Amino acid sequence: MYFATYIHKGSTSIGILDIEKKGMIPFQEICKFLGIEDCPVDMVSLIEQFLKLDIKLLKNILADKKIVQAVVPLENVKLCAPIPYPRRNVFCVGKNYLDHVKEVATIFMGLPKNPVFFSKVACPAVGYGDFIDSHTGIVEKLDYEVELAVVIGKKGKNIPREEANDYIFGYTIINDVSARILQKIHEQWHKGKSLDTFCPMGPYIIHASELSSPLNLDISCKVNGELRQKSNTGNLIFDIPTLINVLSQGLTLMPGDVIATGTPAGVALGFEPQDKYLRSGDVVECCIEKIGTLKNTIR
Amino acid sequence: MYFATYIHKGSTSIGILDIEKKGMIPFQEICKFLGIEDCPVDMVSLIEQFLKLDIKLLKNILADKKIVQAVVPLENVKLCAPIPYPRRNVFCVGKNYLDHVKEVATIFMGLPKNPVFFSKVACPAVGYGDFIDSHTGIVEKLDYEVELAVVIGKKGKNIPREEANDYIFGYTIINDVSARILQKIHEQWHKGKSLDTFCPMGPYIIHASELSSPLNLDISCKVNGELRQKSNTGNLIFDIPTLINVLSQGLTLMPGDVIATGTPAGVALGFEPQDKYLRSGDVVECCIEKIGTLKNTIR
Repeated sequence: MYFATYIHKGSTSIGILDIEKKGMIPFQEICKFLGIEDCPVDMVSLIEQFLKLDIKLLKNILADKKIVQAVVPLENVKLCAPIPYPRRNVFCVGKNYLDHVKEVATIFMGLPKNPVFFSKVACPAVGYGDFIDSHTGIVEKLDYEVELAVVIGKKGKNIPREEANDYIFGYTIINDVSARILQKIHEQWHKGKSLDTFCPMGPYIIHASELSSPLNLDISCKVNGELRQKSNTGNLIFDIPTLINVLSQGLTLMPGDVIATGTPAGVALGFEPQDKYLRSGDVVECCIEKIGTLKNTIR
Repeated sequence: MYFATYIHKGSTSIGILDIEKKGMIPFQEICKFLGIEDCPVDMVSLIEQFLKLDIKLLKNILADKKIVQAVVPLENVKLCAPIPYPRRNVFCVGKNYLDHVKEVATIFMGLPKNPVFFSKVACPAVGYGDFIDSHTGIVEKLDYEVELAVVIGKKGKNIPREEANDYIFGYTIINDVSARILQKIHEQWHKGKSLDTFCPMGPYIIHASELSSPLNLDISCKVNGELRQKSNTGNLIFDIPTLINVLSQGLTLMPGDVIATGTPAGVALGFEPQDKYLRSGDVVECCIEKIGTLKNTIR
């Protein structure tokens, strides 16, 4: 089951993807069908209220003829980031694939002993098809980073590793767009990761029940069709339950919080010569098996 | 003029401090008086709408008898962080007082060439009188950092240094509470700065019109009455217009965004022997001239 935020006829809605019909089922229609009066109006509210819903019941409803009539064809909607306004910055993890740790370290310093958490302004996050601003005159060495992102479904603190999966609503893709010079000259990474349009997210959130854990999903990134990054989410140094466990130590995670789990090798920073950075007109496709492709153009 | 978020009779409101009457004037009463129908319900909305208000007119209104009758005595309210739910994490600046740079660097590496931006989860931020959690078993070396915080009043990107003051709504105090071990072992500072209750903010926001720029305000921090930090905001390495200019390069600042401008020397990390860290029961008072005192107890 795929959840989306989209614009249709000028207004922003949330909905569930109907793969067969190639359309979006407005969540409002599902609420009507279920007799839910305080229908969630955005993805964060949907996630907060979702615990009350039975996923099997929901699947049955989606097959119902009345609901199917309400499908809005995909060609009539503009996809947004599934969570365009997370309540906190996106939690990010650096150096979480071995091959990437090696490519960005001039002298290989070994694996990180603990997850390297930083944050990325994602308010707003941009969606599928939106442009990434090249910020001419401000940004040099504009880079891509495909990442599997975890969407938290339930409030929790000090979450045990073995219970971590219960706190996941679903998964999406984030392109952790990075301005390498800014990332370096400001010492901490925050500024170079946080410029406007630097957090493409989407196209959808796939519900956690659709995937079996641990996640072994192919992950890749293409620039203008050229394969740059290729790995599998099974290669994470700190796996998802560990990230949730460590991040939630003393820090209450909230429904709708997003954790980007790190990027594999193949970023422009890792190439020699250094000629793979993004330029205006480039098309970046971040792809994760079973989740989809997040496509954005540099402007 | 001092703006506050507070709880009175179980509901959260925003108001303006009446210093003489030692009470809070609910903003709702001001809206009634002015015939404003869509009265802002939280501080971020107030700041967004505030541009339309004339500060002189507002001052006249505050002196009006009808309004004065609506004053809620301070002893009847519980202060919250002035902005308990900022739309982004608080933007923080590290190493922005020379004496602090020296105390925390084992080998003094010179001044930072650019502002060191990182972020702190502040959703929610806690207020005056709220406790700071010592996170027993998770946190060692719990430290305080008094900081002048700038509250952005107007949306802006690539803000020129000389126009930066036009984008400031006001100022408040933040205690950038830090878990020194976590800050270190996770490489980036984000995690060690972001635990629950680690962002005390307040007690009020003083409106920018009350202070003349550049700000030369005494800033200090006491623990159990013992003076630990003492400096002046005039000593910032990167001054406020520079911080706003640099941070806003390619990054749109929004009304209600908060920038904590860095802490002076005297944090526990800087003492030898290392016996000044915070313990349960300690009372921390962060004080900035003309803004007030932000007092919190460790629990």
